[in-house]
Order: sequence, then structure tokens, then C-alpha cells
Amino acid sequence: MDKLTVVKIGGKVINDDSALDAFLKKFAKIEGKKILVHGGGNIASEWQRKMGIEPKMIEGRRITDKDAIEVVTMIFSGLNKKIVAKLQGLDTQALGVSGADLNLIKSHKRMNLVIDYGYVGDIERVNDDILNSLINLEITPVVCALTHDNKGQLFNTNADTIASALATGMSGTHKVDLVYCFEQLGVLSDFESKTVIPQIVKKDYEGLMKNGTISDGMVPKIDNAFDAIAAGVEQVKICHFDAIDLVQTKEYPGTVICQK
Amino acid sequence: MDKLTVVKIGGKVINDDSALDAFLKKFAKIEGKKILVHGGGNIASEWQRKMGIEPKMIEGRRITDKDAIEVVTMIFSGLNKKIVAKLQGLDTQALGVSGADLNLIKSHKRMNLVIDYGYVGDIERVNDDILNSLINLEITPVVCALTHDNKGQLFNTNADTIASALATGMSGTHKVDLVYCFEQLGVLSDFESKTVIPQIVKKDYEGLMKNGTISDGMVPKIDNAFDAIAAGVEQVKICHFDAIDLVQTKEYPGTVICQK
Repeated sequence: MDKLTVVKIGGKVINDDSALDAFLKKFAKIEGKKILVHGGGNIASEWQRKMGIEPKMIEGRRITDKDAIEVVTMIFSGLNKKIVAKLQGLDTQALGVSGADLNLIKSHKRMNLVIDYGYVGDIERVNDDILNSLINLEITPVVCALTHDNKGQLFNTNADTIASALATGMSGTHKVDLVYCFEQLGVLSDFESKTVIPQIVKKDYEGLMKNGTISDGMVPKIDNAFDAIAAGVEQVKICHFDAIDLVQTKEYPGTVICQK
Repeated sequence: MDKLTVVKIGGKVINDDSALDAFLKKFAKIEGKKILVHGGGNIASEWQRKMGIEPKMIEGRRITDKDAIEVVTMIFSGLNKKIVAKLQGLDTQALGVSGADLNLIKSHKRMNLVIDYGYVGDIERVNDDILNSLINLEITPVVCALTHDNKGQLFNTNADTIASALATGMSGTHKVDLVYCFEQLGVLSDFESKTVIPQIVKKDYEGLMKNGTISDGMVPKIDNAFDAIAAGVEQVKICHFDAIDLVQTKEYPGTVICQK
């Protein structure tokens, strides 16, 4: 099976043009088939505020109401085209897509009896046939955090989840590496000294949670990673944006999550 | 040669959700291969104003400065995804693209010694090979009014011009009908009584301009049309949005522009 690298970026690199440029230069050099998935950083909230709309939050979670989905659609899609133009300038045959394009990712409105998240979509199905057609044409899909219900409605879907769903969907036909890039050097055992845990295997994970080494925001990320591995993804890497060029080398400085 | 219908929409239908829905329902039913090109209506200006930025105009022409290209990129791309989601809901395998995606339309910054239009691109080349690959996969490309210089920069390019360039580019491999949809019933001989000129052939065009029947905004549109025909496009149709379902029928109520 061919190797496929699925990379997810989000957070600060999205908001900082020079950091984004540096990242994309390295991404463009990754050999073989690849897919880039991106979030929107906090640009959507910034633009909402510029337009005098205060982003709605309930219990720390963003509520995507009718105004918000309009803004989110524009911000994510616009950013998507900006990334595509930059990648084309780096000799990468990029194609920017949302989950609606080519019916790539079908989702449904999140059902929650307590909180109505609004236009937030939970993924039902990835169209891996069309994704295979694209990457076999040596196209690099650049996927933004929008999905659709196949009835005309777009939804905001978490970019981590999209990356995981695409990686899983493609694991039937490819040896998939799923790479989450963020601001930290990897999963840290000690936040002060920035000590990276080089490898996390399933049997050790519970212990690391129990003794508090892994907590808070990292837990859903690592849960997602093990779910992806259980569903066929070869390995999941969690590393700093700057390390994206090392992801296929022995010098890789981030965390690898694998079955054993 | 297979038939290909290239349809351009812009103006009011873009700003009005129910008009857009009605148009897309009809567009989805057009048989055979097709491409949709869309402008951004006046949504970009509206959003700029919402954000407290007054759109810059010189001699009635929009100047796309650094702020404006950011907003235009988001508005056009966001609208593009909205149209794609709606078409997917109508069983059309739509793929939304800018000229940067797949390096579809390469342009360069408009050179003008008198006025600096800013980030406005004049088209150099259409990648008709990749467009052929897409439509042969039964994909309907939905193209927004953005092009790129293949060095990382996006440009705003007139949607009429994009439609004409795509139609011309595809005329080597297809029998192309280029359809401009707008608010009028067609090219009118009498604005008061809304009388449509059913057909304009090259030899009559100059006379119609001289006697004032065709003037103002219609002149560049029809010049464009004859350029496209000279470059290989079969015929150009100019009609109302509502007539898009009649464009391939004998009941077509708009204007046809053809060589003879």
C-alpha cells in the first residue's frame, strides 16, 4: 500500500502570515501523497467582533448560530483559498475543498438535549472513493473545517475530527500517518521543562492519565488518536508546526502514538 | 465533440437567497457537462462597510487594495461553498474552485500607468487539461471570481471575463455554449417595452451600436461575446436568470449572439 500523510494545522500558525508561509514551505516538501486539514484559528471570532457580533459561547464551547455559520463559512473558505494559492506558488498541485465539495464529508447537525450547538456537524461518512481519485491524480487536497448534510446546509466541524475521519477513511487503501501540528513540541511529560514524551502506546495511556501526566486538552486529542489507530491508521504524530519537515525522519522530535 | 454549457451568474441573484435557490434548481437540471461561474454581487462591498471599511472607487471602478482582496477572497470563496452545498443538495456533483485551485487560471496584476487597480488580475492561461479531467469525472466545477499569479498571490478577476476564458479554453475539446445570466430579459432593443433582440450577428452589431440600440454596459459584454466566438465558442446567450432552464430549448426567450 502507498503511504499517505494527513496533516492537521490550527491555532496560532493560522493567524500569523510568516509562520504560515514557513510551515507551508516545509509541508510542500513532504514526499508522497498528502492531505492538509486546517482549522480557522481565532480569525472567525476576530471578524465577528470587527462586525460588531459577539461570538456566543456556552460553557466554553462556541455556539455556531445562523450569523456565525455565515462568517465561519467565509473565513474558513477564504483561508482555504489563501493556503491553496501559497501552495501552488510552492509547486504543489493543491485543491481547496470543504466537506460539501464533491460530497466529500457528509454530516448531520449535532444532537444534544442540553445545549443547541447550532450549525455544528457530526461526521457520518467520508467519500474516500473521490479522495482516492484526487490523490491518484497527484492532487494535494486542502480541507477546511466545513461539512454538509447533503441537503444544502453547511456545518462547522472540528478540524481534528475531520483529519481523523479522513485518515481513517483512507486507511483501507493507504498506509496512513496522521500528524497533528500545534504550538507545543509534542505531548509533554513536564510542561515547565518542555520534556516531550516520544512515544505513547495504548497500554501505558491509562497510567499517564491517572498520574496526571496527560490531562485537560490533550485527552480528547489522544483519545481521537487511539480511535484512529483502532480504525486502521498506522500511527498518529503530535508535534510542533516547525517539526513538520522532520515527520518522516529519524530526527522527528515530537510524540508518536501507536498501538504497541 | 461533446456539448458543454458554461453559465455565468452575478448581480442580484447572488444577494437574494430565494432567487439563488430557484436559479440553482434550474441550473442543476441542465443536461450534459456544465460549469458555473459566479461573481460576488455587492456582498463584498456590503461586508466591507459592515467592518467600517469604505470600498475604494476611482472613476466608477473598484480598487482592490490589500484590505479589499482579503474581504473579496473570503466573500467569494464563502459564497462558492454555499452554492456548492446547495448544488450537492440538488444531486449535482459540484466542486467549488478559485483560479488558484489546481492552478486553473493563471493571471498577472493589471498593468495600468494611470490607475493602480490593486489586486486585480488579467488572465494569462486557463488549465483546460485539468478542467477536462474534472468534467470527464462528471464533476460540475463552480468557479468564483478569483485567479492567482502562481507565486502565492490571489487576484480579483471579473467573472464575465473568467466565464469567457473558460469557454474559450474548452472550445478545443467541446461544443461550447456560453450563457450570461442577468436581471434583464436579454439584450433589449427598447428598454421601456423590454423588447428582446433575439439574435445579434457580427455584421449587424456595428449598426446597432451606431444607432444607439446597444450602448453603455452592454458593449463590453457583447464585445466579450464576439471575442469568445472568434476564439471558438459556438454561441453566446444573454438572458434572465429565470430563463436558464430554457437555454437549450426552442422556447429560449433571451438573446443569442453568433457569428452569422
